[in-house]
Parts: sequence; C-alpha cells; structure tokens
Amino acid sequence: MATEAAPDDEADAADAPAAYDALLDRVRRWNTVGSAAGVLGWDQQVMMPEGGTPARSKQLSTLSSIRHDMVTDEETGELLDELDDADLTDERAAVVREVRREYERADAVPVELVEEISETGTEALQAWEEAKAEDDFETFAPHLEKHVELKREYAEHIDPDRDPYEVLFEEFEPCLSMERAEAILTELRETLVPMIDAIRESDADLAVDTFEGSFPEEEQEALARETLELVGYDFDRGRLDVSSHPFTAGNQFDCRVTTRFDESDPLGAIGSTIHEFGHAQYNLGLPQEHFGTPLGESRDLSVHESQSRLWENHVGRSRAFWELFLPTFQEHFPETDDATVEDAYQAFNQVHEDNLIRVEADELTYHLHIVVRFEIERDLVRGDLAVEDVPEVWNDKYEEYLGIRPDTDAEGCLQDIHWSHGNFGYFPTYSLGSVMAAQLFEAAESEIDDLDDKIAAGEFDDLREWLGENVHRHGSRYETNELVERATGEEFSADAFTDYVEEKYGELYGI
Amino acid sequence: MATEAAPDDEADAADAPAAYDALLDRVRRWNTVGSAAGVLGWDQQVMMPEGGTPARSKQLSTLSSIRHDMVTDEETGELLDELDDADLTDERAAVVREVRREYERADAVPVELVEEISETGTEALQAWEEAKAEDDFETFAPHLEKHVELKREYAEHIDPDRDPYEVLFEEFEPCLSMERAEAILTELRETLVPMIDAIRESDADLAVDTFEGSFPEEEQEALARETLELVGYDFDRGRLDVSSHPFTAGNQFDCRVTTRFDESDPLGAIGSTIHEFGHAQYNLGLPQEHFGTPLGESRDLSVHESQSRLWENHVGRSRAFWELFLPTFQEHFPETDDATVEDAYQAFNQVHEDNLIRVEADELTYHLHIVVRFEIERDLVRGDLAVEDVPEVWNDKYEEYLGIRPDTDAEGCLQDIHWSHGNFGYFPTYSLGSVMAAQLFEAAESEIDDLDDKIAAGEFDDLREWLGENVHRHGSRYETNELVERATGEEFSADAFTDYVEEKYGELYGI
Repeated sequence: MATEAAPDDEADAADAPAAYDALLDRVRRWNTVGSAAGVLGWDQQVMMPEGGTPARSKQLSTLSSIRHDMVTDEETGELLDELDDADLTDERAAVVREVRREYERADAVPVELVEEISETGTEALQAWEEAKAEDDFETFAPHLEKHVELKREYAEHIDPDRDPYEVLFEEFEPCLSMERAEAILTELRETLVPMIDAIRESDADLAVDTFEGSFPEEEQEALARETLELVGYDFDRGRLDVSSHPFTAGNQFDCRVTTRFDESDPLGAIGSTIHEFGHAQYNLGLPQEHFGTPLGESRDLSVHESQSRLWENHVGRSRAFWELFLPTFQEHFPETDDATVEDAYQAFNQVHEDNLIRVEADELTYHLHIVVRFEIERDLVRGDLAVEDVPEVWNDKYEEYLGIRPDTDAEGCLQDIHWSHGNFGYFPTYSLGSVMAAQLFEAAESEIDDLDDKIAAGEFDDLREWLGENVHRHGSRYETNELVERATGEEFSADAFTDYVEEKYGELYGI
Repeated sequence: MATEAAPDDEADAADAPAAYDALLDRVRRWNTVGSAAGVLGWDQQVMMPEGGTPARSKQLSTLSSIRHDMVTDEETGELLDELDDADLTDERAAVVREVRREYERADAVPVELVEEISETGTEALQAWEEAKAEDDFETFAPHLEKHVELKREYAEHIDPDRDPYEVLFEEFEPCLSMERAEAILTELRETLVPMIDAIRESDADLAVDTFEGSFPEEEQEALARETLELVGYDFDRGRLDVSSHPFTAGNQFDCRVTTRFDESDPLGAIGSTIHEFGHAQYNLGLPQEHFGTPLGESRDLSVHESQSRLWENHVGRSRAFWELFLPTFQEHFPETDDATVEDAYQAFNQVHEDNLIRVEADELTYHLHIVVRFEIERDLVRGDLAVEDVPEVWNDKYEEYLGIRPDTDAEGCLQDIHWSHGNFGYFPTYSLGSVMAAQLFEAAESEIDDLDDKIAAGEFDDLREWLGENVHRHGSRYETNELVERATGEEFSADAFTDYVEEKYGELYGI
C-alpha cells in the first residue's frame, strides 16, 4: 500500500556507522531546502502577483546556491570517503549510492559554468520567444549553438571519456542506460511509423465530433475536481489550482496539482488532470519517515512520467473509465447527453496524424515527435549535426516519420521551450515514461482480478495500492531497471507498449 | 513618494570598504532566506492542505537554522570588527548598526536555549488551548512559569546587568527606549481610565444598531476587494485572501494581505482589511534596490503597527471616509440604505465599555487591555509577580482600569495566545503603534491641504505619498524616535493620541 513504509532490512538503526548518520543529516538538510524551494516555485506559478518576480528570483537562486554549497561541501566528500568500504545494509548502501552520484556530479562542474549556463538560458529564452513569434530560426540559432558548446563542456567536466549526450541524459535519468533508452526509442519508431501510415490510409470513421462545442471553464473546473475525487486524490494532502501549464509540485505530505481549461476542448483538462494526479499519487506514496532522504524521494523522470501516463492513458483513455465517467461528464454538460461510451472512447483516442505540435499529439504520434527531438539533440551534442542544419533535418524527419512537413519553424523546431534552457536529454524521458506505464499496467492487470471491471465501477483502491506497493514506497532505493523488473518480472522494454498500441489502435482503426 | 529611493548620501558606492560589501552580501543572503521562509509561512496559513504540516515544520525550522548559522558565523563578527573604526557614510553606518545588533543578540544566546524555548512553546500552546477551553489556569501555569524562567535566562545571556523585561522588549522594539514606552503606556492609562468611566456614565445615544443583520461572506469579500482598490492597494504586487487570523506577509515586491468574515459584523472585515492594507503599504513602500538589507526592511513593530492603525483608525473610522464609503457599502448591502454617514460613523466608533476581550475592543478601551498585559508580564519577568497570582491580579486590574471583572480565566488572562509562545514584551507594541499613528496622522494633516476633503473624495495619493516619503522609504535607516521626529518634528509621545481621543470621543459621547 502506498502509505506503508518500505520494508526495513536493518533491525536496529543504531547500527549505522556514525558517518552514515552524519551524511544523512546533511542530506536531509539540503533536500529540505530543495523542498522549500519547491513551495516557492509552486507559488510563483499559481499565486504570486506579477510584481513579485525580482524577489522570487533572488529567493530561488539563494536557496539553490545554499543547497549547492551544502552538497559540494568538503565534509560531504569526506563522509562519503569514510563510507567507501563500510559494511552497509542494502537500504543504506542505496542511500549512499544516490548521495554519491549527486555529490560527484555537483562537485565536478565549476559553479561558474553552472552560472553561465543559467545566464545563457535567460538570454536564450528571450531569443526563443522572439524567434518563435517571428518564425525566425536565425534569431535563436546562436543561443542554441552556445548551449550546445556549454553543455558539451559541462559533460566533459563530469566524464571526458564518455559520449557527452549520454552524460547529459543521465542528468535526468541517472540510472537507466543510454543503450536501453536508445533501443526503446528505436523500437518505438520502427513500430509506430508504419502504424501511423496505416492509420492514415484507414477508412475507419471515428466519432471525433462527439465533444464539439463550448464548455464553460467554471463547469470544467468542477468536473476536474470531481475527477480527482473519483480516482482517489487525497485533498487533505493536496490542492487543485489553475496555471498556464499544468504541473505537480510537492512531497509525501503535501502534493498539489494544477490544470488549465480550454473552452473548446473539455477532454484536454480531463486528460491533464488525471495525468497530474498520477504524478501527485507517486509523491504522496513516498514513505513519510524518509522525507528528505533518497528513500523518500521519487526515482527519476521516466518513472515519474510512467505514473502520470499510466493514469492518463491506461485508465483515463480506457472504455472502462468512460463507462464510469460519462454520466458524471454529462451531468456537467447535458448537451452531450446523446454521446455513448463508445463515442467518448473514440473521441478521446483519435489519432491526429496531421498534427505538427507535440503537446497536442495523441498517445501514438506523440512518440515520433519525441524521437525527432531525441535524434536531433543527440546528434547536436555528439557533434554530428550543425545547428544551422536543424530546421531542415527536423522537417525531413517529420516527413519521414509522420508523413507531414511543417511550413514554418515556429510549428517546427522552434515549438518547444526545452532547448532554450539547454535541456538536452530531457525529451526521451517522456516516451520512456509512457513505455514504462504500459509495462507496469500490464503487470497490474495480471495481478489485480478484474481490473477493468473495477475501473468501470470506480474501484481504484487495488490499482492505487499496487502502484504504491510496487513503485511509490521504494523511493529511490532501486535503480530504474531493477524497480521495473521487481514490479513486472521483466526487464524494462517496449514490448508491453507495442502490444498495447497494436491491439488498441488495431481495433480502433481496423488495421 | 513611496516608490522613490531613499536619498543616497554616498556619491560612489565603490567607496565602501571591502568589509562592508562583504558584510552586505552576507546580510542579503540571510535576509533572502528569511523572506523565502515568509512565503512558506503565508502558504501555511492560507493555502497549505492540513496534511502538509510535518514537511512545512521541517522546511521552516531548517531555513531558520540556516539563517541563524549565517548570522552567527564567525565571519560576520570579523567583518563587524573590521568595520568598527571604519569611516562610513550615515547610511552605511546605519546598516552596520542594524546588523551588529542582530549579530550580537543572536550570538549571545546559546542555540540550545533557543530550541528549548521553541519546544516549550509547542507544549505551552497545547496546554494553553486546553486551559482556555476548560477555563483551567492550573493547566497552563507550569508552562507559563517555565517560559518566564527561560526568558529570564535568555535576557541574562544578552545582558546580565539590565532589567530582563527591557531586554525582552527590545526583541520586538530594539530601538525604542523602555523608559519612553513605559511613560507612554502610563499616560494612556491615566488619560483613558477616567474617559471610559465618563463614557460609561454618559447618556449619549449612539446609532449602534445601524449594521445589525446578516451580511453574506461572498458579498463582504467583494466589498473588501473594493475597499482595497479604493485606498490604492497595488494588486500587481499583492493579493487578498482569507485566513483564520488576518495578517500581512511579504516585501517591497509582493506583499499580501488576508482578512476574515463574520456574517453578523460587516465592519469587522472592513476594519481589518484597511488595517492590513496599512501594513502592506509599508512593506510595498520600502526601497526595492535595498531588498534584503536593513535599508530595505521595515522599522520595528510599533512603526509597523502605526501604519496599520493610521489607515484603520484615522482614515477608516473617520466621518470623511464614510462619506466616501457608505454608498459603496450600500451597493453591496441595500438593506442598509436608510443609514446615514453619521449613523455609520457612530456605529464604527462606539466604545464597548463592557467588553472583556482585547481583539473585540474599540479604539479606546483597547489600550487598557494592553496596559493590563504589559504590567503583568513586566512584573512576571522582573520577578515581582508570581505566576499563580496572575488570574487575580488580572481581574483586579480589569476592575480598576475598565470597571469590569471577568467571570472566568478563559475570558480573562487565558484569552490571548502570546504568552504561550513566551512572547513577553510584544503586547506594548500594539498600543505604541496606535499612539504613533495619531502623531503621524496629525503631522500629515498639517502638511497635506484639506486631507479630510481628499479622503471624502477618495483621493488618497497625497496621504500615501506622505507616508512613503516620511516613513516607508527609510527602511531601518533611522531608529524609531528619530524616524518619528523627522516625520513629525516632535519626539515620540502620547500627546497627539490623547488630543485625538479627547476631541473625538468628547464629541461623540458629550463628555
């Protein structure tokens, strides 16, 4: 269960070496500073009046610098050295492994370089906004160039002997091998390109106009709140608010979600609300007694995304869910009373094969949007692609993988914010998370009797408990692949995902 | 004007000794941590779900401990030593004076004692809540006893040769002499006791039932928002929310107010909203370029309270304000359409001579509630009063000063939370602030043409600018008395206040 502590393999905590306890005190302190900064970040996006920006920037940079100083303090290194040959329980060894990784990375990179990257990000963000608005890649190109250089330098500080893209990928995914990640992304491409081609050729006639109309925000907000209640969000440890980009922020005591509303698209808010619920549920399921230590922190981005995607796609986009949910939806929007569960299911699962925009993509084409970005940023960082060639390569890849070609860079390689922050290696985690969601859901289905019927009946306890038991309560104790293997009995792979999409979309589109 | 910077008496900032710049960097850093903690505190009282308490406590205690470590770091002391004989501009000398005071106090008291007081506070708070609910002083007495002991010890660490109450008072009011404070409180008592007696005997018939009825919260909230707009609150740098106790939190970039609503008392929310506006206006008027330094931080509690009381009492409780405000009020509550400005003025200014509860007191009796607490806590800390005798002394003083005697300790010495935190020396600042408000307002009236007419016309710019110019923009540059003297041309005294109440209540009650 989500609220149960991870099994403790040490009989007596007093057995820990003094250096371990001292290290843990330090780690708790710096992670608590980090979680305080998280509250400030949430406030900034949800509550802060516009004028507050200068003070908030100083508060956040000060907390970040304090945290960095604590991590890289020489005492951290000395305590880790002392623990080098210590005989530790598995749990404690996992803590030391996680702390050592963070310390070594933080210690390897000069503060000046981190600051330069941060400053470059501020300028690049402005340039990107302008470039996107004006559809002018040239404006952004020198900033992207600089980010590539600085991030290569960054990677070199960490390990001059390894592929720099791999090193950067580990910033977001420290314990999943690049090799496995790349194999999964390649399999996605090989599976999805022909599928989407077939869908384009298919003459299936989906009920895509079921939810056309205007759906007032106020009513959508009430519905979002009910959706969260339905899936079991604990409002005593969370909140729902509105922000321009939906996100989740918090810890095992207080984890909040946001959503946003588009009056012409009521499904958008439902999908995003369930998505953020999955993220929040993960954090809320971390063991409370390990707050501030690696055992009380979530595993990395792909695992986090697996939790949001599992709820969004495998629950929220299922027929069973719409059996449960459609009457609630229709209470709020009686003008849709004629829609059947099958209509809703089809509308929520249509493939937008002509869509150019990642954030508007469906469950299927989404991954090709990611593969394009992954291949381009990997080649940029490896020095196999010049910045000036990005727009053309981007467009060629869209044509090759998705059968569509952007008319403008604004709808092409300038659409996402990530590269303006210099975040190379981030995009793949989105797809890896979806793939992992499919594998976890397949395992949950095989272990929970009649899961589909339970979803249709609004009984989510078993699923929440399964995820709590198999994922949440472990915190960062296991590395990614071990976590997946323990939960599913299989190595992390794209198999479950390809089975899932082939079955689901095969049936929907008759392919 | 509030937004203008304080005049800089140094031509070239590069002239400052290196130690000064180094000190300022440190100070900015610790004050920024403090302001980050302020955001967490606001969130805790306004937004946080109940379950968030354990994480929030850890976040706040960690930030507090980090800040304390920075203040008491030996480098702070060394830099201050270096600056001992430095030739500094007045402005820089003021910064050093403020930092030195904070450093010396923080450095003098052992961390263990601070923690013991904090822990005692947690236990005492629970005991106080129980004692108040059960009307059982005995439950609270040992905790109060312990607080008195610990706080005497605290004062002794800071200065073993001085009156411990004076030392504790300086925690809240570091640059206002106890002697002046005590003289003001004594004058308040001597003026107000006979006045309230006369009011009790007066047969004046005030329109006290003008606003009886039920006033829905939603409508009160809309009115509170309009009230803030009317007096000129900058919503781009602030927010209005609801909390169980109204308060103000923030800085010159982002300062937020809260209020609360009582459906049977619409005046309560109006008074408290204007009061918090005064606090917020002070913080928002601090110079932005000095954020995080003493020049960008408000002077102490009495000055802060002077700003809230000036707006609440001298503006909000004036006839001129009700000439402006009554039509707005009546738009929200048309059932009060028969009320005249005079009715509203009388209703808002009636003296509750039989009220036992401080937070429900009027502008006049309020100070006797404070004087009772001041005299009792002073005598407790000085060792001139035993804890067990508090209830009787309390009741005797209420009888002597206010002509009423509590039937229970719950309505008597257990009514306020402050002593459960061990906050001895805090209460007087409430009255000192009101007295200062009267003196500042008198000066503003003499310098602003037709201020009364301007208030009645909703023209608050001149008053806001006068306060910005004379109080807000100085931050902590001047000590309290100097600040008042510069603003008003007179030493800080109770004269303006006694003139004000004698005239106002003399007329209202025909005494």
